[in-house]
Amino acid sequence: MKGAIQIFDRFHEIVNERVRSSLDERFCYASDASQIEGLPDFVIRPKSTEEVSRILMICNEFEIPVTARGAGTGLAGGATPVKGGVVLDMSSMNNIIEFDIENLQVIVEPGVVPEKLNRTLKSSGFFFPPDPGSSAICTIGGMISNNSSGIHCIKYGTTRNYVLDLQVVLADGRVINTGSKVLKSSVGYDLTRLFVGSEGTLGIITRAGLKIMPLPIAKRLVVASFDSAVIAGKVVIQIFSAGIIPSACEILDNTTIAVLKRCDPNLVFPNLGDIILFEVDGTDNSTAEQSYRIIEICAPLAQSIREVSSKTEMGAIWEARRLVGAAISRLDPTKTRVYAGEDVGVPIKQIPILIKKIQEISEEFDIPAMKYGHIGDGSLHVALFIDIMDPDQWERLKRAQEKIHRTAIELGGTVSSEHGVGLARAIYMRDQLGNDFLEIMQSIKRTFDPKGILNPGKLSL
Amino acid sequence: MKGAIQIFDRFHEIVNERVRSSLDERFCYASDASQIEGLPDFVIRPKSTEEVSRILMICNEFEIPVTARGAGTGLAGGATPVKGGVVLDMSSMNNIIEFDIENLQVIVEPGVVPEKLNRTLKSSGFFFPPDPGSSAICTIGGMISNNSSGIHCIKYGTTRNYVLDLQVVLADGRVINTGSKVLKSSVGYDLTRLFVGSEGTLGIITRAGLKIMPLPIAKRLVVASFDSAVIAGKVVIQIFSAGIIPSACEILDNTTIAVLKRCDPNLVFPNLGDIILFEVDGTDNSTAEQSYRIIEICAPLAQSIREVSSKTEMGAIWEARRLVGAAISRLDPTKTRVYAGEDVGVPIKQIPILIKKIQEISEEFDIPAMKYGHIGDGSLHVALFIDIMDPDQWERLKRAQEKIHRTAIELGGTVSSEHGVGLARAIYMRDQLGNDFLEIMQSIKRTFDPKGILNPGKLSL
Repeated sequence: MKGAIQIFDRFHEIVNERVRSSLDERFCYASDASQIEGLPDFVIRPKSTEEVSRILMICNEFEIPVTARGAGTGLAGGATPVKGGVVLDMSSMNNIIEFDIENLQVIVEPGVVPEKLNRTLKSSGFFFPPDPGSSAICTIGGMISNNSSGIHCIKYGTTRNYVLDLQVVLADGRVINTGSKVLKSSVGYDLTRLFVGSEGTLGIITRAGLKIMPLPIAKRLVVASFDSAVIAGKVVIQIFSAGIIPSACEILDNTTIAVLKRCDPNLVFPNLGDIILFEVDGTDNSTAEQSYRIIEICAPLAQSIREVSSKTEMGAIWEARRLVGAAISRLDPTKTRVYAGEDVGVPIKQIPILIKKIQEISEEFDIPAMKYGHIGDGSLHVALFIDIMDPDQWERLKRAQEKIHRTAIELGGTVSSEHGVGLARAIYMRDQLGNDFLEIMQSIKRTFDPKGILNPGKLSL
Repeated sequence: MKGAIQIFDRFHEIVNERVRSSLDERFCYASDASQIEGLPDFVIRPKSTEEVSRILMICNEFEIPVTARGAGTGLAGGATPVKGGVVLDMSSMNNIIEFDIENLQVIVEPGVVPEKLNRTLKSSGFFFPPDPGSSAICTIGGMISNNSSGIHCIKYGTTRNYVLDLQVVLADGRVINTGSKVLKSSVGYDLTRLFVGSEGTLGIITRAGLKIMPLPIAKRLVVASFDSAVIAGKVVIQIFSAGIIPSACEILDNTTIAVLKRCDPNLVFPNLGDIILFEVDGTDNSTAEQSYRIIEICAPLAQSIREVSSKTEMGAIWEARRLVGAAISRLDPTKTRVYAGEDVGVPIKQIPILIKKIQEISEEFDIPAMKYGHIGDGSLHVALFIDIMDPDQWERLKRAQEKIHRTAIELGGTVSSEHGVGLARAIYMRDQLGNDFLEIMQSIKRTFDPKGILNPGKLSL
């Protein structure tokens, strides 16, 4: 890049002191929650669509890479500026622009934190359903860019299902809207969904219209344990066939249960087998009815079943479940969880096979693995943990994660269910999607971003 | 096109007698359910993906237009070969390839009729939710190409939400898969959703993996009438806010009610006001609870409320609702319904204004209009009816439909909620979507189909 000082001045004209180029500040933006690093040349915190548009015009003119970043909670290097250039820190664009309850939607800036949005929506009796584990700190912009979801996706769907409209700044600075306030339309290509999950490679999202849903009045939780994941999987299908769609359906293996109990010694879980948490939501009567039916269906096949009796206990279980991935050090203080191979997914029938194969991989490479996840939609989180000071363990971990990803692809699955590709999983794109698919992606990318300035190096683009 | 006879022979090599070029057979394919006409040069009924691929290679080589057609029930000319060339009649590719209930999905060829699919799925306790009025005769391929939906979309979403994977033949004959059997994934651009609603302009769909849902065990129907659509609209929001998502929420105006009563004199409906049909589905208890709450919420604002007591009556009401659009001649035998301006949608809060404005347009041009539709998702069907032998009435009808479309756009809405753009609504694309949006669509189109052979002239491409 030529004339860094002149470029800085151009940015400064637009955003004043909200552009930084000191090494310490650039260093703060050199990674997200992954191990992938890349130092930006500039960090800019835009406050408006117009600022983003003017910044992109300059970047496009001088072919400066631009990487958008929300809260930096991504686990695949999606927000890491591996080719330098500008990091656009979108977290200052965090206004809820409009509560349009009567149209069943809200309009937000990309830096809005979903939990904050939901706290505000609660009084109206509505919520924004997608709920990644990081929902207390991540941003809506990041969720849209990665098509995030979470435990309630089985009933409510992924972020993709809730985006009605995006305001996007294109690489050349043009601003487009991809949708409107209308809840359904059959007019034109679905550019909205094309941007969802595109990880900042096609444009910078500066505003989003999101569909909201009525808050369920009641929830119930059934905890059941099974001899094997195969039996657990069969029960899940029987529950669907009985006309019940749980609002969550999480499987936890033995190691996960051990960690959960260390997190909160008051938690009551069976000691053996694979456990499934079935949550149902709705009204008082409907949840009672569904929970009764779930228990009835589980009964002939489960080792143990019980309905969680109080709201307090239910809250404690979900809180522990939310923290379990990071809490492994409670079991062994020498070990740290490393996010690698952590987000695979397969057709749901294959979940038991996937669990078995991951157990074998864990043994082969002598890397402990905790397995838990959304059995109802085929997504399995694998927590591998090592002594991060030991290079040999790092080496084995890398080989284990490679094998986990390849296994998911062989089972007809995906290397990422909800965390995204970024750089961490870019090498698997061709095997998972095929050459022609990737070629089409590259052509679409060139259409939107002919100079390749937007998040270069990601998604194998 | 050069050498029609040689081209015919090339096609004949691939599909034998399933290519036709006689005038009478070509004439059968000169239109869909719209008034738009265009004579194809060849009609081909492929039986396999490989045949489609080989046909497209020839068409691409000789730049022959290719228009895919399902059952020809489209209302916007989407399947009309306005530039001649080949009509690919996909209705012979009508096999259900796999029932994969354990993975909550089915794999079908594009010619499968949705009602037939649902009859077959019923015994497993599942169904494919999108249900256009034409579901007894239309095809899944057409539904995907137009992102069709129907009365249950308010709870279940549109076709877009149910497509997991598409096998698509590209313009140059390459075959790609856009997804897999996995229920959720965050890997790569969402090509699946890009094809959904693209009306055959980007590729020919030859296979689809569809998500299925558990069949609800019980349904209930509440019929309420209101002084005005404004009050009715308010009630709908209150019902959402109470945590209830009806499985259908249909508004019917006075004229519609009159026609319904002529269709089936046994139907019991109030004589005044705007009527809403609230359907809830679920289990026996949950539907009882929801229906009770709906009645409670309606009570202070409705003129009349009653719950439909029997399954038979419920069936009769929905059957009449399904036929109402075409049944106008029961009211006035000199009049025929013309599908024009029939599928507009607006943000749901604007539905009362839209209804009022359409009434004004109906009076201004002296064209009777029946108004009914999916108030819960902002989609309003307008049935205009004229004496089709009278050129003056045709002229007034055209001006009325133009004004209806413009009104929807002005209210922040869409010229098509669920029927598609085709040629009938192509002229509104620029106003509804904007220049930049349309330019991006054109670039994407060129990426997939550089020679412009796929359904040319549609979507203003």
